[in-house]
Parts: sequence; C-alpha cells; structure tokens
Amino acid sequence: MAATSRQVEPARVAEPGEGISLEELALASRNHAMPAEALRDELTPAGLHYVLCHYDIPAIDPATWRLRLDGCVERALELDLQALQSMPSRTVRVTMECAGNGRAALAPRPVSQPWLSGAVGTAEWTGVPLADLLRDAAPTSGAVEVAFTGADHGFERGVEQDYERALPLGDALADDVLVAYAMNGAPLPVQHGFPARLVVPGWYGMAHVKWLVQVRVLDRPYDGYQNTVAYRLRQEPEDPGDPVSRIEPRALLLPPGDPDFLTRERILRPGRVTLSGRAWSGWGPVVAVSVSTDDGDTWREAEVESAVEAEVETAAGQQDHRWAWRRFTLAWDATPGTHVLRARATDSTGREQPIVPQWNLGGFANNADQPVVVLVLDS
Amino acid sequence: MAATSRQVEPARVAEPGEGISLEELALASRNHAMPAEALRDELTPAGLHYVLCHYDIPAIDPATWRLRLDGCVERALELDLQALQSMPSRTVRVTMECAGNGRAALAPRPVSQPWLSGAVGTAEWTGVPLADLLRDAAPTSGAVEVAFTGADHGFERGVEQDYERALPLGDALADDVLVAYAMNGAPLPVQHGFPARLVVPGWYGMAHVKWLVQVRVLDRPYDGYQNTVAYRLRQEPEDPGDPVSRIEPRALLLPPGDPDFLTRERILRPGRVTLSGRAWSGWGPVVAVSVSTDDGDTWREAEVESAVEAEVETAAGQQDHRWAWRRFTLAWDATPGTHVLRARATDSTGREQPIVPQWNLGGFANNADQPVVVLVLDS
Repeated sequence: MAATSRQVEPARVAEPGEGISLEELALASRNHAMPAEALRDELTPAGLHYVLCHYDIPAIDPATWRLRLDGCVERALELDLQALQSMPSRTVRVTMECAGNGRAALAPRPVSQPWLSGAVGTAEWTGVPLADLLRDAAPTSGAVEVAFTGADHGFERGVEQDYERALPLGDALADDVLVAYAMNGAPLPVQHGFPARLVVPGWYGMAHVKWLVQVRVLDRPYDGYQNTVAYRLRQEPEDPGDPVSRIEPRALLLPPGDPDFLTRERILRPGRVTLSGRAWSGWGPVVAVSVSTDDGDTWREAEVESAVEAEVETAAGQQDHRWAWRRFTLAWDATPGTHVLRARATDSTGREQPIVPQWNLGGFANNADQPVVVLVLDS
Repeated sequence: MAATSRQVEPARVAEPGEGISLEELALASRNHAMPAEALRDELTPAGLHYVLCHYDIPAIDPATWRLRLDGCVERALELDLQALQSMPSRTVRVTMECAGNGRAALAPRPVSQPWLSGAVGTAEWTGVPLADLLRDAAPTSGAVEVAFTGADHGFERGVEQDYERALPLGDALADDVLVAYAMNGAPLPVQHGFPARLVVPGWYGMAHVKWLVQVRVLDRPYDGYQNTVAYRLRQEPEDPGDPVSRIEPRALLLPPGDPDFLTRERILRPGRVTLSGRAWSGWGPVVAVSVSTDDGDTWREAEVESAVEAEVETAAGQQDHRWAWRRFTLAWDATPGTHVLRARATDSTGREQPIVPQWNLGGFANNADQPVVVLVLDS
C-alpha cells in the first residue's frame, strides 16, 4: 500500500533528559541485540544474531508457502520451497546491521527501537541468487525497481501495510543478493524469516526482507512506506531526505575481562591484554582500525586481519568474505584504574567512523564510536 | 564464594517517574523476552525463548567440558559430555520464567533487568535425571543441600563470583530435575547453557543453572550470593527476606489482531474473535483463567485445555506435561473502539494472580495481570 503524507503521523523525538519509555522498552525486549561477547565469534550463532521485526513474527506453513515473482516480467513465476531449494545455490557470509543501531545514543533521542550498539551479527546465508530468479522471469525493458513483500503485517504511524521494501533494479541484480533459506547451515529460524528471506550484502537490515512472499518488478520508482517515509535521513519532518542504504563503517571491541551484572562495566586484573574486536562497512572492506585506551586522547593503529586470513581461519572455502566483518587486535598494558576504550574503523572508500554522532530525525546510521568502560583492579 | 553483607552494595530503586536508564536498556537489549506472538506455540522455538544471563555467555569447548559431582558424597564423579549423553535420559516439557518478570511494571521500579511480562518460554528439555547422578555419587548422611556452579563469571554489587545456586537436597532429588543437554530435540543453544544446564521444573529461572560444571553436595545450608543476597523477597535492605523459589501463577493473552510497530497496541476489525493465551504455575496445574475485555470491570471464565488435550495435540507421548503452560480460549465479540483485555490464572493450590502487584525490593515474582490494549476499527 502506498503511503501518503496525510496519513502519516510525525516521528517523535524525546525531551532532553527523558528516560527510555515503557513503549521503547517493550521494543527493546522483543528485538534483541547481539551480546557483546559474541564478538569473539567470526560467525554469530543464530540465537545471538540481532533481530528486528517491525510487526509480529508470522506463522508460515512451509508446505503451503509460495514465492511469487511478477509485475513487469515476461514470465511470472511461482515457486514452492522445494523448487527454490532445488535451484543452484550460493552461500555468502554477511555482516548485517540494523539501520537504527546507535539510535539510543543520540541526543535528542528519536523515539523508536532504542538500539545501543549491538544491532549486528554475521552469518552464512545460503540461497538462490536473486539475479537467477529475475533472469527466469525476464524483466521487461521498462523495469526500474524491484519490490519485496514479507508476510508480516501491521500498522506504522497510521499506515496499515505488509512489510515491503524496494531496490533499484541494478542493486537487485547485484552479485550475492540472495533469496536465502538457510542460516549458518540450518533452516532459517522463525525470527530470521522462515522459510525464506532476502539478503542484500552491504545494506542495512531493512533491505533484507524476511518471510518473503512476493518479488514485484516495477516500471516506475517505488512509493511504499518503508522507502519513502521510513528509512530516510532527514533533519525535519517535511524534508524528503536521502534514502538509507549501505552500512556505514563501525568497529566494536570485544569487552575485555568480566562484567558487572548491572552496569556491564568491565573488570579485569592488571597486565598485558590482547584487545580485539570486529569492524565492518557496507561500502568497502575495512582497511584500518584505530583504538584508544584513554577515551580518545590518543589513538593507535590495530592490526586488521585480512579477508584471506579470515578465510583460512574458518576453512569456509571459496569466497573472499568481502561482506563480512574483519577482526582486529591490539596489545594493551592494563594498569590499575578506570579506562575508557574506543575503536574507530576506516573503509577502503575512505569513510571513517565519526567521533561526534551525525544526528537525524529517524536516528539512522549513527556509527559514532562507542566507549567501553574498564576498571582494572590493583592486583 | 560466600557473600557478606559488608561487601554488598544495596540495590537501587528508581525515583518516581524516572524513565528506564541506559544501563537497564543495555540489559534489556541483551536479555530478551519471548515475543508475545510466540504464545501461539505450545513449544517455544529456542530462538524466541526468554534469555537471562547474569554475566557473559561463556565459550565452552564441549571436548574438554567436564561435570564434577563432589562435596559430601561417597564417590566423587567426573563426567564428560559423551558419558552424560550415554546415560538413561528423560525429556520434560517445562515452562520457565524469570523471577524478575514483571519488574518494570512495579512502582517504584527496582533497578535491574527491566522485564515487562515476556520473560517466559516453554521447551522440551532432554537430559539425565539429577537423582540418578546423585545416587551414583551417594551423598553422605549429613547432606542437606546441593550447590550448582556455572562456568559464567562476573561481579554483582561488589561481589566477584561464578554464577552459583543451591537447592535443598529434597528438591534436588525431586522427579524431573535434569542435567539437560538438549532443548527441543537439538543441542542446547549457547545462550541456554551449552553443553549442559540444570532444569528444575516449577522453579523460577535462577534455579536452572546454565553452563553447569560442578554439583557440590553440602552438609550445611548454602551461604552463596544468589541464594542469600539476591533472589530474596524483602521490603528493606536489612530484611533477611524469604527465598524466591517456585513460579507464581500467570496467564498471558496471545495479542489479537495486528500490532502498531511502535506502541504494540493491537488493531483489529470488528466481529467474533477467539481470544487465547497460555497460563502456568510452578505450584500446581492451572485450573481456571478469568478474562476481562473491559479492563477488569467484569470477568468471564475461559476454557482451559487440560494437560491430556495438550498431550494429544502435540503427540509428544508419555508424559502429562504437568510442568508446562496450558492453553485457554474465550470467544469475544469485538466492537469498535478501544478495549483493554486482561487475564488471570488460578492454580490447583488456590494461588490466584493478583490485580495489585506485590511490591518487593528486588522486583521478584510480580505476577499481577497485564493489560493488552486493543483498538477495534469501525469496519
């Protein structure tokens, strides 16, 4: 359903000092982050991968599920799960991140799913290249965009809708875009789109439509809610804004030591520590990570693992894992007292994580670096 | 490690009107609830089951993992995973709930993991009856309690500790207490205690020690932190308090209709709706559920599925599923306007969900009924 501006209530921004509301908390308790200790793993276990579902997780019977490809195509297709799974498949390792990651750290805070910094995860997705399916359907010469519809249904700022997003045709035909039916070698968990979802490597999570039921080729720009109203970078409600697309660079530190239950402050004993973490960007490979152990006063260059090293380490075979995060390490002599650790990534296109957040009304793409507070004991 | 009151900082209670803090939000984003739509399932998919981990999820190599049984026993035992899995096993269907479920709805709000009402889930746990292991080890005549140690380690209100809880010997020997290595027929997910955890049917989650590495038989009452400091029902910090143990009765409604993304308000069209939900108690089977569709002004009795019906429905075989929730249903003629739905359970011991929360300093066992706000459209 197309959204018109008349139907849409404006997004709200929290008052200065306003704590997280029970509504935001309800979202935070159902849409969970990846716990920071999962940064030790190259592949995130499915149960720890971040999850963001706009509406309810739909219950889909795989026996009756169908994927339709239609719209501006020569041959509309309808596939059942068995037909999809019998096509040539590809497995791609992808770091996926929610576009709202970092929103709760913005001031003032846009009121929506209140992510801190953990809305991320890396998985191996197996499925059929979307380009193969589109080639079978044969888009007509006027085709310009492709819309993807999920089985999830709800209301958002006054607009009733199926969750639906579109991509320009060129992006839809790009290498490694998949209609995926497996995650880390197992059928998709229900919260990750069972039985099939779109995977668009390098793009924020809103593009990876879950519970996919329809692919519709369009001969004009898409005007649906999630592209034209939500997921725009704007400063004012009336600003048309730029679309949210690829993932901005970010590095996260694996928190050293042990946690305090309530504050999540890290506690460790003095001595040499190998700090490590993982860094990613949807624009190009991460080529450098700077780490500070004094809250940003000074920075040192970490060692960044190359994709080839990652490949050897995990023995996953043929691919260069260009869509996956890279591990970084740095030795640190931890001395007694409180320290604030920070890390910042730079990618091959020159994009660098900012220190000051770039505010926008939707709270998207805040990739400012995040502090990790560490208390080093006396002994 | 024993905790002394000198070491322990007092728990904090939020000021009136104080929003959820970023510290509480950080806990909420890593310890996730079961999304309410999962109430449609008798068995909760592992990825949707609630998770509460006090410290970091430990990385355990199943090849080197060992379970030790020692203390006041005739024969200390050490088992590897293969040895555990080769013993006679049992599968038990268990509804598990966090003792802090409902905490964020208390006023004033105790500051800790800010659960609303979703810290619950039901799974089939497969493992070795703890009674069999204890029989092999042969507790000495003076044995009174059994302590269970997890591999997770951290700090809590100033006290460094492995996560550890104890049970009275009689409770540890009870039927259906398991050292479980499978959840819903698959190896435990890492966040649920891989490779093995304790399952204590009927008890709140704090008793089901995850990442279990040691079972220690004691000849005196246990004095560790999680039994003597945390998980006590008290009004004042200096009050010794009563221990938190079994799950108080609760009913939750499967939210009807479709959600609004932000508010989670439910939106549906007018007409006859079958309301349903699930209800449980750790003290005895749920025998009655009352449902209100007018915010508690009037109540009607729902139909409560018997355990036998649940068994037939799921074809899981031999057991009566006495530890699992029961489904309830009630027909409702939804008329246009806003309605507040509520449900309250009563168990076979006469325990009934209260309307007014029972406040305590730790925010435990708040089983007051929860409203579900529903907007019925005009057509």
